[in-house]
Amino acid sequence: MKLGGSAATCPAAGFIRLPSSPCCISLSGVKGRGEQAAGPSRDQRGGREGRGGGSSRAPLPRLATCSPTQCGRAGNPWRWRLQPQQETPPPPHTHTHSDVDPPLVTTADGPTETTDEASVKAAAKQAEARLGGAGLNLLINNAGVMPACTLESATAKDMLDVYSTNLVGPMLVAKEFLPLLKKAAQASKEKGMCCGKAAIINMSTILGSIEKTPEQYFFIPVVSYRCSKAALNMLTKCQSMGYRDDGILCTAIHPGWVKTELGSEQADLTVEESVNGIMKTLCSLSEKQHGILVTWEGNVLPW
Amino acid sequence: MKLGGSAATCPAAGFIRLPSSPCCISLSGVKGRGEQAAGPSRDQRGGREGRGGGSSRAPLPRLATCSPTQCGRAGNPWRWRLQPQQETPPPPHTHTHSDVDPPLVTTADGPTETTDEASVKAAAKQAEARLGGAGLNLLINNAGVMPACTLESATAKDMLDVYSTNLVGPMLVAKEFLPLLKKAAQASKEKGMCCGKAAIINMSTILGSIEKTPEQYFFIPVVSYRCSKAALNMLTKCQSMGYRDDGILCTAIHPGWVKTELGSEQADLTVEESVNGIMKTLCSLSEKQHGILVTWEGNVLPW
Repeated sequence: MKLGGSAATCPAAGFIRLPSSPCCISLSGVKGRGEQAAGPSRDQRGGREGRGGGSSRAPLPRLATCSPTQCGRAGNPWRWRLQPQQETPPPPHTHTHSDVDPPLVTTADGPTETTDEASVKAAAKQAEARLGGAGLNLLINNAGVMPACTLESATAKDMLDVYSTNLVGPMLVAKEFLPLLKKAAQASKEKGMCCGKAAIINMSTILGSIEKTPEQYFFIPVVSYRCSKAALNMLTKCQSMGYRDDGILCTAIHPGWVKTELGSEQADLTVEESVNGIMKTLCSLSEKQHGILVTWEGNVLPW
Repeated sequence: MKLGGSAATCPAAGFIRLPSSPCCISLSGVKGRGEQAAGPSRDQRGGREGRGGGSSRAPLPRLATCSPTQCGRAGNPWRWRLQPQQETPPPPHTHTHSDVDPPLVTTADGPTETTDEASVKAAAKQAEARLGGAGLNLLINNAGVMPACTLESATAKDMLDVYSTNLVGPMLVAKEFLPLLKKAAQASKEKGMCCGKAAIINMSTILGSIEKTPEQYFFIPVVSYRCSKAALNMLTKCQSMGYRDDGILCTAIHPGWVKTELGSEQADLTVEESVNGIMKTLCSLSEKQHGILVTWEGNVLPW
């Protein structure tokens, strides 16, 4: 299925409830309570024909988003999370094991820990079971932490902790969900690449662009974050090479500076503006954006 | 002192003994026995006027090179080390505590472990004592490991171990040696930036260039290495921003594909060719190369 070019028919709508796309599947690495209202109805699970609004009647793509549970660890002053937006304010997007009916991806031990191989493996098994033999179309690695860190303050532990969340987590998740993505790609009739076929989207940042660093370094040094995201950009490029023949689109996205707990109230964009932009961009991605870094508006950023 | 443009007067000759530059100071983070013949004579330690060959009579820059002791850990199939070349073959460049007379940088507990903050702090203290009040002109972070690692085989431990050696080590060493570099910059009469004033050289690689990845990925995937070196490139850019006003040149260098234990016998360059090129390039670096990645021949590489 080729996705439409508008947010209204975008498969990523698990992020956010839009008037004409109320039903997109969200397999969350950490199934927080806040995702409940944006989650799928039962008949959309397992990749069956959806009840999508608007003109979309094609099979709905299956989407997994993964956030790290360790976002909430002590010592991380900022957290990065795209909050679902709903008509009524959702409960806080927590890291606790969800008790909604039933969570799509959970493990016996609680929420998925994206930096723990066993936990990610268990989540992938759960997703496989829920998909009922179908593949997974879209994996969004939106894990991320951005603690304050300067050249003067950085410690070995700071650097390794941030790398673990921002690079190792997305790598492990992609590795373990790969068979499901391959299955979706093989089942697709699409010849090109798109998010409706099979895709890994790594949530990166302009702060991971080495070329762009002089533009904002003194405003926001965050050295551990920058280094980890430059590495994530490299991982995206490696994935784009390694998974090219499997037909899996691999793209890194900069979501903009967003009014979140991480971005602060001074940020340029509301969550809705950013997520709407990301959703439109996801819908437009093709092999032209394979292995590159684009903004929430789809503009190419230098490495 | 402005360094000359030829390897013969280059301060980096601690790496390699050239006919007309027999006396350059080498403060090695890991003082291996192999560095003995390339080490300084006593009157060059402490930043005093050197006995440099050729036409150079200016104060000799002080150089520190840092290699990780954990290169030799089990599980790292390749090691990266620029071997000193001498008229008579040196003994193997080992990680053992040197018993040469006396080692320039050692700690009570043995060789410096570049990923261990206490060990690096101790090495910096030793260097400070040896410098006798003078600053340090040139710090070369040539630490690095490159284990085999693919998207399929990569584990969390693989990624973190390589990041620790290739990114955290250079970061810690630069941080702890920074006061000595600042002292050298402050004492220099140079207005611009150069290795004879104060510089941090991070030994990077073309394999850390995201842009260049498609050219060699299938030949040598080394995912953990690539990610860590992309991060090192970002660190270099951050250092170039953070230390700009201190007058400390920060540049990343790709040494070429060299016939070493890491590069294998199939490599393009001999050690001598690579090191000669690096030395010439070091001599030519100025603020134009501040915060960029260049090859051993001085050509700019994209991020």
